[in-house]
Amino acid sequence: MNLAETFAAYLPQIEGEMRRLLEPRNARAARHYEIMQYHMGWRDPQLQPATAPSGKRIRPMLCLLGCAAVGGDPEAALPAAAGLELLHNFSLVHDDIEDNSPTRRHRPTAWALWGIPLACNVGDGMFSIAHEAFFHLLDRGVPERAVLLALRRFVEMNLALTEGQYMDMSFEGRLDVTADEYYAMIAGKTGALLGAAPEVGALIGGASEEEAAALREYGAALGRAFQLQDDILGIWGNEEQTGKSTASDILTKKKSLPVVLALNHAGVGKRLRTLYAGPEFTPENVPAVLTLLDQAGARQATEEAAAEATARARAALQALSSKGNGNSAALLDELLAMLLRRQS
Amino acid sequence: MNLAETFAAYLPQIEGEMRRLLEPRNARAARHYEIMQYHMGWRDPQLQPATAPSGKRIRPMLCLLGCAAVGGDPEAALPAAAGLELLHNFSLVHDDIEDNSPTRRHRPTAWALWGIPLACNVGDGMFSIAHEAFFHLLDRGVPERAVLLALRRFVEMNLALTEGQYMDMSFEGRLDVTADEYYAMIAGKTGALLGAAPEVGALIGGASEEEAAALREYGAALGRAFQLQDDILGIWGNEEQTGKSTASDILTKKKSLPVVLALNHAGVGKRLRTLYAGPEFTPENVPAVLTLLDQAGARQATEEAAAEATARARAALQALSSKGNGNSAALLDELLAMLLRRQS
Repeated sequence: MNLAETFAAYLPQIEGEMRRLLEPRNARAARHYEIMQYHMGWRDPQLQPATAPSGKRIRPMLCLLGCAAVGGDPEAALPAAAGLELLHNFSLVHDDIEDNSPTRRHRPTAWALWGIPLACNVGDGMFSIAHEAFFHLLDRGVPERAVLLALRRFVEMNLALTEGQYMDMSFEGRLDVTADEYYAMIAGKTGALLGAAPEVGALIGGASEEEAAALREYGAALGRAFQLQDDILGIWGNEEQTGKSTASDILTKKKSLPVVLALNHAGVGKRLRTLYAGPEFTPENVPAVLTLLDQAGARQATEEAAAEATARARAALQALSSKGNGNSAALLDELLAMLLRRQS
Repeated sequence: MNLAETFAAYLPQIEGEMRRLLEPRNARAARHYEIMQYHMGWRDPQLQPATAPSGKRIRPMLCLLGCAAVGGDPEAALPAAAGLELLHNFSLVHDDIEDNSPTRRHRPTAWALWGIPLACNVGDGMFSIAHEAFFHLLDRGVPERAVLLALRRFVEMNLALTEGQYMDMSFEGRLDVTADEYYAMIAGKTGALLGAAPEVGALIGGASEEEAAALREYGAALGRAFQLQDDILGIWGNEEQTGKSTASDILTKKKSLPVVLALNHAGVGKRLRTLYAGPEFTPENVPAVLTLLDQAGARQATEEAAAEATARARAALQALSSKGNGNSAALLDELLAMLLRRQS
């Protein structure tokens, strides 16, 4: 199977697993679960069944491929794959509150429709269900020790995710964020989940410590490359393809790597800090910022950093494929390439 | 040891376990953890070390006693006891956001000091750490199977807690809440955690299914009695002892059992609904509401329901103590009596 065939084979199973997990457990709190289903794209704002665009389901696929890459049965890892995707979605529900975002994937966010109190609690419910998913691994014959190892990794990841989100929020209003701080932030915010997903799968598949470490390294490097590509698209992406306004990350003064590099640049840093410090930042300022980013070589430096992270992810895979199961490693390599080619 | 001696022996250990768990793991996100410590009463609003009044630590004590009651070593259950108390505190951080509460235990709440975005994320961090605590059971020699059983129970409980919170929020603005709905709500909001605490301890101590069921029944009934006592204090409590204004639950139109009973009462229900429906509800209305509650016999009915739940908790303990370890069962009985005697 190539990557497209693998997605086609497993996506319906991942989707089915998630739908079962988000079924209401208590008729008196059915709406609590239906709002979770709305967030997943399975219901409309009136909570009637619907089909809205969903995420790419990269994290659950990384989990299944990580399991297969160490010789495990990917179907045994399906509950954990669903748990990882639900955890990702819990974090989006809370991020939307914390970032005051009224829309996601062209639809109103949960808090925008039902208010912060209900949406915060809906997120907490999804968080619990994401953990619960791991206990269904036992029904698929995964040994107790492997379930404990995978769940422990998952819990550590969740804490790292909140650290990343803390750092991201603490960068707002700061103009002296360093590249080191930026990398620490994305290691939590993007890298934690993408780094843990293949390793969690590997632990379920009975990985050795070396195999688990190789897959963690692969996932963490993939997460970094993925975020850097996101940073590039957020400034130079094609509006029609990304669905966001051009240079949206500049308008929101996001501390993405290109901006951080330019803010710290000996030549243009001072001018950019002056522009970003002003209270009135309008679309008219965008061309000036883009010029400063050009002068700082910010795009090229970010592309180089993404290429470096990609090479690191590849090297981790090579260490793995030399141990056997080269096909799954090849699929993980294809997934890496797919994520970096994306234009949205 | 009597109950006071048992508290004196274990509280410092529970406290120590929690303090270790909330130590910053990442220097760049130290403030994320320090805000958790503020919520626990260990830091002041400037995040300097401090000692503020904390909770009663009932849940961790129930966990340790539940472990001892089935012949387990309570010290082995300390990480889970700490996890239960941290889970309770995570839920308070989010409840304060969801209920728009500016103060708790006479101090500003986390969101009031640092805003909803940071506080929501701080709660998520505590949520993760509460789960992480369970993996430290392995360091204390608790078998893997028992850790999985206890953690699974914990995760189920967390989901039930969000169901209870959903129902509580959905009751706002409604004047037709039934007693059945009220009981379903408190079974989640108060009963889930108090019900799970002794059972989690028992599972760590190697309980049989019957023992675990008896302790779950004890905890759930104790939770109901505890909440009903809370409802009574919220209306008829002594202001000096509770630290809240007299009849505070009437001013906030809380759907506690006495109010729900009176709202559904054939004789006074209509008049109370008219009072509660009016947009202008001021302290001058309180005496009229109290008179209607009196006429509905709401206090006596609530006291009877609390006595019934207490008897149910006692019966569950008797089933347990007939199987051995009568001393721990006696302490659980003493704890039940202590909670029901309380005036604040």
